[in-house]
Order: sequence, then C-alpha cells, then structure tokens
Amino acid sequence: MKSRLLYVCAVLVGAGAFAGFAIPQEKKEHADLVIAGGTVVTMDADRHILEDGAVAIKGDQVVGVGKRAEIEAKYTAAAHIDAHGHLVLPGFINGHTHVPMTLLRGLKNDVTLDVWLKNYIFPAEAKNVTEEFVRWGTRLAAAEMIRSGVTTFADMYYFEDAIAEETKAAGMRGILGESWLDFPVPDNKNEAEATAYTEKFLKRWQGDPLIHAAVAPHSIYLCSQKTLHDVQTLAQKYHAPILIHVAEIKKELDDSLAQNQATPVQYLNRIGFLGPDVVAAHCIWVDATDRKLLAEKGVGCVHNPSSNMMLASGVAPVPEERAAGIAVGLGTDGPAGSNNDLDLMEEIDLATKLQKINKMDPRALGAKSVVEMATIAGATAVHLEKEIGSLETGKKADIILINLGEPNALPMYDVYSQLAYALKANDVDTVIIGGRVVMRDRKLLTLRETEILAKAREYGKRVTASLEH
Amino acid sequence: MKSRLLYVCAVLVGAGAFAGFAIPQEKKEHADLVIAGGTVVTMDADRHILEDGAVAIKGDQVVGVGKRAEIEAKYTAAAHIDAHGHLVLPGFINGHTHVPMTLLRGLKNDVTLDVWLKNYIFPAEAKNVTEEFVRWGTRLAAAEMIRSGVTTFADMYYFEDAIAEETKAAGMRGILGESWLDFPVPDNKNEAEATAYTEKFLKRWQGDPLIHAAVAPHSIYLCSQKTLHDVQTLAQKYHAPILIHVAEIKKELDDSLAQNQATPVQYLNRIGFLGPDVVAAHCIWVDATDRKLLAEKGVGCVHNPSSNMMLASGVAPVPEERAAGIAVGLGTDGPAGSNNDLDLMEEIDLATKLQKINKMDPRALGAKSVVEMATIAGATAVHLEKEIGSLETGKKADIILINLGEPNALPMYDVYSQLAYALKANDVDTVIIGGRVVMRDRKLLTLRETEILAKAREYGKRVTASLEH
Repeated sequence: MKSRLLYVCAVLVGAGAFAGFAIPQEKKEHADLVIAGGTVVTMDADRHILEDGAVAIKGDQVVGVGKRAEIEAKYTAAAHIDAHGHLVLPGFINGHTHVPMTLLRGLKNDVTLDVWLKNYIFPAEAKNVTEEFVRWGTRLAAAEMIRSGVTTFADMYYFEDAIAEETKAAGMRGILGESWLDFPVPDNKNEAEATAYTEKFLKRWQGDPLIHAAVAPHSIYLCSQKTLHDVQTLAQKYHAPILIHVAEIKKELDDSLAQNQATPVQYLNRIGFLGPDVVAAHCIWVDATDRKLLAEKGVGCVHNPSSNMMLASGVAPVPEERAAGIAVGLGTDGPAGSNNDLDLMEEIDLATKLQKINKMDPRALGAKSVVEMATIAGATAVHLEKEIGSLETGKKADIILINLGEPNALPMYDVYSQLAYALKANDVDTVIIGGRVVMRDRKLLTLRETEILAKAREYGKRVTASLEH
Repeated sequence: MKSRLLYVCAVLVGAGAFAGFAIPQEKKEHADLVIAGGTVVTMDADRHILEDGAVAIKGDQVVGVGKRAEIEAKYTAAAHIDAHGHLVLPGFINGHTHVPMTLLRGLKNDVTLDVWLKNYIFPAEAKNVTEEFVRWGTRLAAAEMIRSGVTTFADMYYFEDAIAEETKAAGMRGILGESWLDFPVPDNKNEAEATAYTEKFLKRWQGDPLIHAAVAPHSIYLCSQKTLHDVQTLAQKYHAPILIHVAEIKKELDDSLAQNQATPVQYLNRIGFLGPDVVAAHCIWVDATDRKLLAEKGVGCVHNPSSNMMLASGVAPVPEERAAGIAVGLGTDGPAGSNNDLDLMEEIDLATKLQKINKMDPRALGAKSVVEMATIAGATAVHLEKEIGSLETGKKADIILINLGEPNALPMYDVYSQLAYALKANDVDTVIIGGRVVMRDRKLLTLRETEILAKAREYGKRVTASLEH
C-alpha cells in the first residue's frame, strides 16, 4: 500500500516537473481573463471560426485569439471563463435606437405614423421627458440590451449627457448623439441652448474609453440647411460622429424632390454634409446614385427591419447597399411603437427574412451576411471598426457567450444559420464589455435590476395618467 | 407570557371562526388547482381581461374564471399557483409543423426551395428518418414548444403513431397527421402500407383526451385525386381531421391552373374535398373566390409567416381571409430550414409586421388579431374551438403564465401589444396542459431534457456524416 502511494506521488511530481519544463510559468504572459473552450466566431477578415478556441484579455483589450491549447500555453490569467458548449462572439452592435423610449414601450401600436407621433409620442414626451426620465429609461434599456448581447449602441435622444453617464455606469459602449430639431425639445428650447448643451457634452467625453459623444440632427425634414451646417461645424470641431435619420419614409423623398429637386441623399451631398463621420439610419428610399454617393463618402447606414415593418416605412435595399460597398449595420430603433423591444437578435433574423420575401428569393440575404451586419459591418457603419466588431488582438474586449444548451440551439449544422434563425437573445448568458464582465450566467452585474423594474412600472402609470388629463 | 399566548390563540380561533362564518368551508367547491393573482387574458367571446384574476381547474378542465376574490371565495384547492406579476393566457396553438425535423434544424438555409428539398432535406430524410429518429425529434420539439408556451400543435410527418406516443408522454395536446405522398416514404412504401398504418393509428387513439389522430395528404401536387379521396374516406370513417398544404407556392397555383383549370382551392372543392374537417396550411395563393369557398366549407387555415418569408413562398392575404370569415391560425412550419425554430411568439410578432410592410399600412393587422390567431382563432382553425383556445368554464385547462418581470416586459401600456411585440418565448414560465403542470418556473416536468439534448447533438453528427458519404 505504502509503495503504491509513493509511486503515485512520484508520478505526480514527475508530471508537474514535466509540465513546468515544457512551458515554464515565468515565460507565460499575463492576462486578466481567459475565455476558453467555446466555438470562437471571430468575424475577422477571414471569418475564422475556432472550435475549442480561446480569447485572452488584458485591460480593456483582446491580447490573444486562437485555439485553446495555444492560448492556455501562452497566458496565465487572473480569471477564467469556461466557454465549453458556447459560441463566443464579438458583442452585437445596435446601430440605431432611442433608449429612454423604453419607458414608452408599446405606448401605441397599429396606427399610422402621423397619428402615432402627433397623438401619442409627442404629447407623452412633452409631458414626461425629464433628465430623470431619461436616466431610468437608459438603465432599463441597458438591462435589456446587455441581456440580448448588445455591447455597443448608437443613440439619438434628449439629455444625452445623462444618457452617457448612465451608459458608462452600466459599463456599456455608446455612440450617443444629442438630438437637434428645429423646434423646442425637452432639454433645449432653441438653437443657442442646443449649441451650449452639445458643446459642453462633446468636450466632457473627449477621450473616454466607452462613450463617443455625438451630435444627432433629426433629419432633413426637421432640421434646416443652416442647422445641418451648424451641427457639422460643431461635430468637426470635436471629431464627433453625426447621427441622422435618412430617407426613412416615402414622404421624405417626395418632399425633398419637390423642395430640393434632389433625393434626401443627393441633397445632403450637395450641401456638403456627407462624410466618413456620418451614420445614416434607415436609408430606405435610396436609388443607385444615392448608394454610390453613400459608399464614396464613407457614410455608414443602419438598417432597422422591425421598425421599417412596424411603421410600414418600406424595405431598405440592403443587398444593393452592401453590393455598392456601403457598411450596413443593424438597429432596433426605439421601443415605443416601432419595435417594441431592443432585441438585436430579432433584427438579425428579420433582416434576412424581410429581404427574402421582398425579393421572392431565399438567396437575397444570407445568415452570414446578417451576422456580419450585427458585428463587423455594424462596427464599420458606426465608424468604430478599428475598436470593435470582431475578436482580434488589439481590439476592445467586447465579447458575448451564447449558450448552446437549450432545445432551440440543437442540433447545430451551421454556426451562422443557428445565430440568424434559431438562437435567441435569451441564449446569451455572459457579456463582457471592455474587459469588464457586465453579465454572468444571465445575472446583471452593473445594474440594480429590481429597482429599475420597479421604476419602469411607476413611469408606466405616470405616463398613462399624463395622457388622460 | 402564558396569558399573552392564550390571547393570541383566542384571536386566531376567533379569526378562524369569523372566516368560517363568512364563507363556510363546507360550502366551497373543490378544485384541483387554482391559479390566482395574475392578469387573466381570457380570449373569450368578449375578450375579457381580468386584473387580479383567477382560474380554477378540476381534472383536465377549467371550472371557474373570474376575479381572484370571487374564485378564492368559491373554491378550495389542493394546489395553488401564485400568478401575481404574470399574464395568464390560454396556451398557444402551433397550427402547422413537422416536429421531428427539429433534428434537421437549419440543415441548409439561404437556397431555393428546390435545392433545399432535393439536395438536402429529401436525402437527409431518406438516410436518417426511422421511428427512433422521430421519437427523439418529437421529444426535442416538445421541450422547445412547451418552453415557448405552446400547448397544442398540429403535425404532419412519418411514423405519426410514435409521434403521438411521445406527445402524450410529454403531456402535450396534438392533432397528429400521418403523411400521405404518392411515393415511398420512410414509414410506408405504398398506399396499401399507408392505409394499414393509418387505419391502425386512427383506431388506436379514438377518444384519447390529448391526441387527435389525423391524416395528412401532403398537397395536391404530391397526392393524386384518388389518394385525396382515399384519405378522405378513411378520415370520415374515424371522424379524423385532415391536414394538408394548400396554395403554398406560386408553382402550385400555376400548375393547378394548367392541369385542373382551377386554383388549388377550387380544384379541392370540385373533387369534394373541402369540409369542416380540413386544416389547410399556408393558403397564400388564394383569390377572393377561394376565400369565400374556404369560409363556406368551414376549412381552417394556418398562416406560417417565418416559413413563408424564409422560403420566399409569398405573403398570405391574412386580413382578407379573416374578413371572409375564415378562422386563421398560426404555425411555425418545420424547423429544418423554413424557420428554424418552433417559437410561436415570434410568429405572432412576424404575422403582424409582415402584413404591415406588405400593405404599407401599420393598421393592416393589429396586435389583438394576431394574439387571437395564436389562441382562439387558432383553435377554430384546427377545429378544436370547443375544447381549447380560451379560458372559459368547461374548456380544457391549457394555460400558460407569462412573467412580466424582465426588462423587455416593462412598462406595459397594452396587453395585446406587449404580447405581440415585446414579450418573448422565454418570458413564459409555467405551462399547464389538461390540468397537468408540464413546466414550472421554466423547469420541464414531463421530459428528460439533458438526455434529449445529448441525443440531439448525437443525431446532428449522424446526419452530417450521412450526407458526406
């Protein structure tokens, strides 16, 4: 008995010595976190998919992506996440939304855009939108987005500085645009106020690792040419992105043709507005010339299939836009009646199905293309492709783990098909943004969810009462 | 101390006596289960919604629906479910699917219907579909469907008797149609075999509380007129429903016009096939005359928006069908490449969005209408409206609880909007079928999920290998 024990000990010591000899501890590089064992869907230029892969993270960056054995041999890590049975992806990018409108979720549906805006949304906003409202709405939205694997979002609303604070507190990445419209809005009563607010906002967030402060002139029909120029000047001064709705509805096209003798895109080009700092939401009513211009000027487009269907805005020519060389991302739009959720995985699914039925061709837009739109193409659309959108060394560590352990996840014949058509927001179980774990096993780590849900109920009652009087 | 204890006891006895006096225990009726405290969305004729409502269940039936106070005053129950913070609804009805195809989930996507069927589905089925395959596929499907609030489904596949056994074991309700095609299929090599199999199958399940055995001639293009007549004779002998694909693709319409000088619906009517026992899946290529015929003959239609988009089959004229008086339900279709999941809540959302964009009118089909299609209209479409589809005394106790405690669920301004556009399959947390709790707090009680998932992985590998050789 004793000799057998000694033999076992000797073997163990030997194995340890051998392992130490093969890969000396002191030669390993340090990482803060290693995620290992999953199927790593890199979305890099070659769209590598690594079975039994791993990702090493240091600070807020990815420092290594490869096979598990290779990464584990190279790094020692302070923390590990076992990703067996999971897909490991770059976080999804919600390229267009209005996050505080979560508090108006589904306020009114199944009416025309005019009735919806004039009878419901504008009165509800006028009576309820304060900085406090915006904060709680952002928190609710952050909870919902993290739960569906979104790590970056582009927003257009009021009190955007408060939205930035809440986004940062939630640990999310944001391209956050203060809205400009040619009429008084909840936070600014005129252009002088808007300029003061926006300039302070842009200055404050310069160089922030998570927050990209932006300016968001609503559209060509709610902003004059002068407003658009002023916004552009301000944006260029602070190297800030510009977010704008472009060619969303037929009326916008018709009115622009009548007033400007040009399509919305050609009008924006004529006034010198288009450039590689612009993110154009929707881009539905765009012709071949428009698409060529958008591509040439480096404008990013964001497709919002739920919203476009819900409001019957039209079907964006996404395959043609991609073919023209435009980076097209995906967005949920706001949840007040044009979606009514912030679930980007539904947009992935819808984007492909909508093109197929619209063109009566199942090949119109495939699973891989829409997963690209939610990740690397989406990153390019919001002009952050050097920072996010793929799992590559040097990029920000914005990473999601999707569980393959639910009935809807099995069997899996093709990763992209599964992502586009079978996996759901709820299958996302872990989310990391800039190296920080913000959700683990579906538990939110940066947000007080119970308090947020209670506030959401309270605001629901308040908004309902405000519309009754 | 002693006197205080005596006092407490006296108070308790007094309270008991008082409660006993107000509602004497012996006068209360017995119920097996009372679900109390939620928002009960009855889907009854008046579409009553009861805040702080309750449902009492005895055996497999609903015996009482009302306000909580009223139901609790009337019934003592062996078991209680607290439904505070939940919607309580009749279970969803998946009116058209092919459940064993879960094992071929997303086998191939983004190709034309022809390529998909001939190069992938038919070879995969020929090489893999056995009774054992069908059993595991049904178990996987049952797990997925229960998790998304489906309590009843209509199926068309092979070895349907095995599907019936597994459906019953899972505690689900099914209208299960043995498939008939004019060529050899995995379970039957000719019509004589099909007749023998089907007759035995129909006899076996007569009077079963959960299983409605049915016959499923595939379509007019894969079944001759003689086959359709033989199926009808068999179905009528056993009072069995008939499930069939009708007017799904343009080619079916064109070919029927050429061969029969009639649309598919008018051809089926001419040969005396249409009646109140028929459930017609798809009904896309139907004109006004077809719709009038379907309504007059009491045929139920089932709309499958995901599948119709995915395969680019066309957009069913659902509003026109409803206006003609046809009961139109909702279905997922099979998950092998025409969906790729069994999530009926996504079909609710898609059904309305698809009509809105197709008609370029947000009023085309509203939230309440699509919730009807998933419940009471769906029940009527599968001819079980006397049994299921609403929460009313005398109906089967098929009930789901949907949690309103996740970020996407709040705030809630309108119950139907929330159900159609914001709530997800994952929000369903409890499912009761025929009075039996089959899922509680998202834990499946009738299925061995771990084993099923392992088998799904195994079949995935086996199918992949079978197509490589």
